[in-house]
Order: sequence, then structure tokens, then C-alpha cells
Amino acid sequence: MTVISLLSDFGLKDPYVAEMKAVILSICPEARIVDISHEIEKFNIRMGAVILASAASYFPEGTVHVAVVDPGVGTKRRPILVVTQRAFYVGPDNGLLILSAQRQGLSHVYHVTNKQFMLSQVSRTFHGRDIFAPTAAHLAKGHAPSEFGPEINDYVLPKFAKPTLSKNVLAGEVLHIDDFGNVITNVSLKELEKIGMKEGDMLHVKLEEDKIKLKLCNAYGEVRAKQPLALIGSHGFLEISVNQGNAARKFKVEIGEAVQLSLS
Amino acid sequence: MTVISLLSDFGLKDPYVAEMKAVILSICPEARIVDISHEIEKFNIRMGAVILASAASYFPEGTVHVAVVDPGVGTKRRPILVVTQRAFYVGPDNGLLILSAQRQGLSHVYHVTNKQFMLSQVSRTFHGRDIFAPTAAHLAKGHAPSEFGPEINDYVLPKFAKPTLSKNVLAGEVLHIDDFGNVITNVSLKELEKIGMKEGDMLHVKLEEDKIKLKLCNAYGEVRAKQPLALIGSHGFLEISVNQGNAARKFKVEIGEAVQLSLS
Amino acid sequence: MTVISLLSDFGLKDPYVAEMKAVILSICPEARIVDISHEIEKFNIRMGAVILASAASYFPEGTVHVAVVDPGVGTKRRPILVVTQRAFYVGPDNGLLILSAQRQGLSHVYHVTNKQFMLSQVSRTFHGRDIFAPTAAHLAKGHAPSEFGPEINDYVLPKFAKPTLSKNVLAGEVLHIDDFGNVITNVSLKELEKIGMKEGDMLHVKLEEDKIKLKLCNAYGEVRAKQPLALIGSHGFLEISVNQGNAARKFKVEIGEAVQLSLS
Repeated sequence: MTVISLLSDFGLKDPYVAEMKAVILSICPEARIVDISHEIEKFNIRMGAVILASAASYFPEGTVHVAVVDPGVGTKRRPILVVTQRAFYVGPDNGLLILSAQRQGLSHVYHVTNKQFMLSQVSRTFHGRDIFAPTAAHLAKGHAPSEFGPEINDYVLPKFAKPTLSKNVLAGEVLHIDDFGNVITNVSLKELEKIGMKEGDMLHVKLEEDKIKLKLCNAYGEVRAKQPLALIGSHGFLEISVNQGNAARKFKVEIGEAVQLSLS
Repeated sequence: MTVISLLSDFGLKDPYVAEMKAVILSICPEARIVDISHEIEKFNIRMGAVILASAASYFPEGTVHVAVVDPGVGTKRRPILVVTQRAFYVGPDNGLLILSAQRQGLSHVYHVTNKQFMLSQVSRTFHGRDIFAPTAAHLAKGHAPSEFGPEINDYVLPKFAKPTLSKNVLAGEVLHIDDFGNVITNVSLKELEKIGMKEGDMLHVKLEEDKIKLKLCNAYGEVRAKQPLALIGSHGFLEISVNQGNAARKFKVEIGEAVQLSLS
Repeated sequence: MTVISLLSDFGLKDPYVAEMKAVILSICPEARIVDISHEIEKFNIRMGAVILASAASYFPEGTVHVAVVDPGVGTKRRPILVVTQRAFYVGPDNGLLILSAQRQGLSHVYHVTNKQFMLSQVSRTFHGRDIFAPTAAHLAKGHAPSEFGPEINDYVLPKFAKPTLSKNVLAGEVLHIDDFGNVITNVSLKELEKIGMKEGDMLHVKLEEDKIKLKLCNAYGEVRAKQPLALIGSHGFLEISVNQGNAARKFKVEIGEAVQLSLS
């Protein structure tokens, strides 16, 4: 029994996700399919990469992750299969898979060219159904990664900014805003420690529309309801939150916005 | 192991979809349940029929499709079970199932009357849970379709307009707008060929609010980002799209709107 | 094979639900996971409790229900495991689980303290993934409830108002508004019978913004399309509806609003 995870920007209104699942179950009826998210912002490869990387580490060894945020579908961008020490990834060669794969110990990348593992008719608009889903299902059935096509080394690397440190000010950006309105930055605990930050300290946070002072907490409930706080979220990154409230709405924050952090 | 697919206009906020799944697993624990969509526009039988027909062809042989867009629940409209050459369908007798069933080679339609295969208490507001789900589960367990009730021939046929051709102008309509904003018409490739249309040609498109000239492409990426195009989508119908954009929003198109097509 | 149900206020955009499923499948690969809803209003424990109680009764015996609406995560609120005559419940000790558990014959409540059944790193922001999901998975694998921690009796009881009767006027409130706009009250059939109400009667309904007179029907289709009606919904409570329309929008009703009912 193999777990196959699915991530896309397709939404849940249309038949697209179900068509991928139907293709998978037609080839590999014993696969266990788990949706990671289909509400990735349309064409937002970075948001897809971040959410895939967050979820993937909790999946069983040997999981096949299929991810489709694919503005280049039908053009020359290649379909790829990535092998890591723990898992497999199938999707477009646009950086989407690599952030997560690198964290799991990337070992090989293959250009998927073997038509034997694709649907007999491959459209130029829906490779999720016609190439990625059947590739994942055949992989789950036990075919070796090298059967799917030639190994490549020039795959597209993710180009996601890392925070920079200058004069004890950390300059990062907003990576993701979750459904609770938590503002998740690209600043990790390790980087905060570089400026001497530790739990209980007060943090100066400069956003585009606001300057705020927040306590670095361990749990939302350490401040009163509707009060803001900072914490290291369950994904390992600094998060700006409001206890039982919506931080993104309160501070009018958007994805991609700059964030500056310093000790007070 | 049988796959049971579910489609409805119930949304995902309420317990309704889960209650159907719970009923199915109580009767047939080994069923594999796959959601097609629960975001069908409320009471929009045509949208449900179109999405069911699109997805159903990718499912394994023997799949039981349960579909519930059911404005007439609790009235005299009959619950039906449809048998085709590839699959089974369970739902209301209002046209929802027949479009898809006809494409898969409809062979028999039964009026579901056998109370032995329904929940012991049948409400007059939720046949999805009380009649359709248990019927599908008992069918998946191997009961013969004829055990569920008498065969009928006067089932409701879908009344969906087909495009018409007059003086080399194809007059169709907007069948569906997907989550990307792609405008999917009821005009198929075969009909476009009747007016001599082929890939690469320029197409005159008249919508309610706009007259546009579009290239008939094979892939979204054949035009620059944010530029409009036409193509035959993965469902086989002419689609008006914007590469990495939202065509429905750009051209202010709504479902059901008239579309006229001609060669330039 | 055990069914594990999931309910939360997490939404479907983020990786949170998938991380819980991934943890469950890593421990108990044969579990069947069914989503009840992840669209519970953020932090709305009552809405979560009502939807859980509605769905749970349809699940197979032995189901493990995991529910997470958890404003107190990371504070002193306890994680609990509830055993009933039909099922198990895992989640926060804030009333969320108890409404449903009491309806299924609550027998024991345990404070989950055994770290052996939690993830090795327990965050203070996501007990759904770090405590509740692994607890449910180990329970599904056959561990006895008493292995998870000490039995307790001082668990939090749900504080949900019941309707009151005075001078033949029933005073209740709006419990839930479903995705169709049906207004579901906390008034059951038994309470309506106390004021002599029966099918076909006309009911005076006083809402905050409207006074209306509605026929107590058995099915939506007993009135013409777009006309309002009252009925006992599939959940057993009085519901104010509009046939093929949206009652909450028509009468500007919100969750929690007062409702007064009397016979005309």
C-alpha cells in the first residue's frame, strides 16, 4: 500500500482533482490518496512549494507526492520525477517540488518521457491528469524511477529569498498567510537566535503599514484574546498572530510583503 | 473493492457529505469513496450533469457514481439507478445522471423502490443520505440492479441546448466557468470543423459584452502571459482563456450566456 | 479496519489537515479517514459540537472521531479521550466532544497524558497534529483507552442553551445556518409538540428583523419555488427554509439570533 499525496491550485469546484484520482485508482487501486491542498493561489509556485514542504515531512516513508501549480503546462517545461531519501515527487520542472525534496535529501531527478506511463491521449492543458497522475500511480505499483526517463541535473531550482542580516536587523518577507490570518515569515528560529532573540523577549516588527512590538511567545494563549503576539509556528518559522483573531487583517499584511525584525 | 464517487451541491461546511460517506462505510466498509465535487451551484442540474460527465469517463470500470443536485427532494420525483456499459449511477430522476450515462452507453434504468436497501427512516429532505448512499453501498456489495426496483423507460432526459449553425456562424452558449476563469462553451471540436476551423486560425467570438478575435491554440503558453486565447480544453469543448489570467472576469462572462463563433 | 473522522476549523487551504492525516497513516496505515468538516467557523466550539453530533450517529460502531476547535491550544486546557457505547472521541476538553458523546451514551473520559502516544516533539500551537492525531491512530490500532492517561470526571460540559416555554411561546435560538441558507434552530419536534404543533399547522415565527407565518411542512417542495416554509430537518430540529432559495439571506438571520415560535 502506497500513499499518494496531491497538491494543486485547481480548487474543489471543478472535476480536475477527481479526474486525477480516478486515473490513479484505475492504474493502482490500492493507492491511498491524501489531499494536501487544492486551494493554492492560482499559479503561485512559491506558496505551493512552501505548503508542500511543510506537509511532506509528516507523510510515511515511500509516499509519492504529486504537485501541480503549472503556469507553463503545454510549453517546453519538463515533467519531472524526483527521488529523495524518504519519498518521491512528480510534477512540473518549475521549482515547485525542489524546496521540499531538498529538505528530504534529494538524490535523483528524472525527466519523465516514457509515454508508456502516460494516458494514451496527452492534452496540452492538463498534464496533472494525463502525465503526473499516471506516472505517480505506476511508481506506486513498483516501477523503478529510472524507467520513466533520463536522469537530469539542470532542473529548475526554487528562487525563494532568504532573510538577510545587517546591523542586527533581520530583513525577511511574508511567506504565507494561513486561513486563521496568521502571518508566516521566512525567518526561522536559527536566524532569530543570530540576533540574540529568545523566548519571552520583546521583538520590534516593521511591516509596510505598521510598526509593532510583540512578545515572542510559545502559545497563542500566552496573551489575552484579540491581542497580538509572535511565535515560532509548527512549521518552524516566525509567525505574527492574534490570539483568537486574524493578524493579517488587523495589520493589513499581504503575502510577499517585507518584514524587518530587531530586538528592542 | 468498488469505487463510489460523490457529486453534490451541498458544499463542504455542513455534515451532509460526511453523513453520506458514513452511511456508505457502515454498509460497505471496503468501498473507496472519491469526491468529484460538492461545489456545484445550488440546484444547478446542468452544471452537475456537465461536471459528472466530464469526470466519470476517467473512473475505473464498475464505479458507482452517486450524484445529488435535487431541487425536487421529497416530492414525486423518483430515485433512480442507471446501468451503463462501464458504470452505475444513483440519484434523482431529473436529468442529472443521464448526460453522463448516455456517453458511457446507457443500458437500463431502474426506479429505486426497495426499502430494504434504504435507511430505516427516510426523511423527505435528504435522500442523498437516506436512499442514494445506501443504494450505492448495497450495489457495491454485489446486489443486482434489478433487485432495487422496477425497470422504467420514461426517465427524465437532460434538456441541454446544442449549438446551432447558420451562415457559417456557430451559436452556442457558456456551459461552465471553471475556478481558473476559463469559459467553457458547448461547442465541440467536431462543430468547429464544420465551419472549417483548424488550429492556428483566428476566431471571431461574440459575447454579450465583448467582441474578440482569438487564436485557436493548443496550449495556454502559446500566447504571452495575461493574453487571451481559444483552445479545445481537456473536456473536448472550445474554451476561452487568458494565459495565467481569468477570462470570465476579463470579458465579464456568465454561465448560460450566448456565444457566437465565426472564422475571420 | 477502523474509521477515523476529522472535524476542525482549519479550512482546506493550509497543510494542517493533511499533516494530521499523514501522522495517522504513518501510525495506522489501514485507518479509513473521513472528513466531517474543516469549515467550522474559527473558534466556534458550539458550531463544531452541533455538526459533530449531527454526523457522528451515522458512522460505523467503533469510529474514532477527532475534533479540533481549540482556542485554548497550548494553555492548561487538557487533551481528552472520550469513550461512548458506540464510538471514541479525541480532542480538547472544551465541550466540543461532549454534546455528541452524550447522545451516544458517554461512559468514560480520560485525560490524555501518555507521551508514548504523541509525536516526539509536541508544539504548543498544533495539538491536532502532535497529540490528537497520533492518539486516535494508536487507539485505532487497538490500544485500550485507559493506556492513554487517568480517568477524569471534571471534564468541561457544553453550555448550549435549550429553548424555554412560557405562555405557549417557545423561545429558542439559531443553532446553525447551512450552506443552502437553511436556518436551523435549537427547537426539536418534541418541544413543538408541547405547544400542540403538528404537520400542516401554521406557525408564527418572530426573528430579530422579521415576523413571518410559515406552514410546517414535510418537504421543501410542498411550497412553490422561492416560497418560505418550516420543517423538521434531517437533524431533528425545526428549520426555516425557502424552497430552492436562501432563507438566511431572505430574512437576514445570523447564528445565535433569538427565535420565538407560537401557533397561530
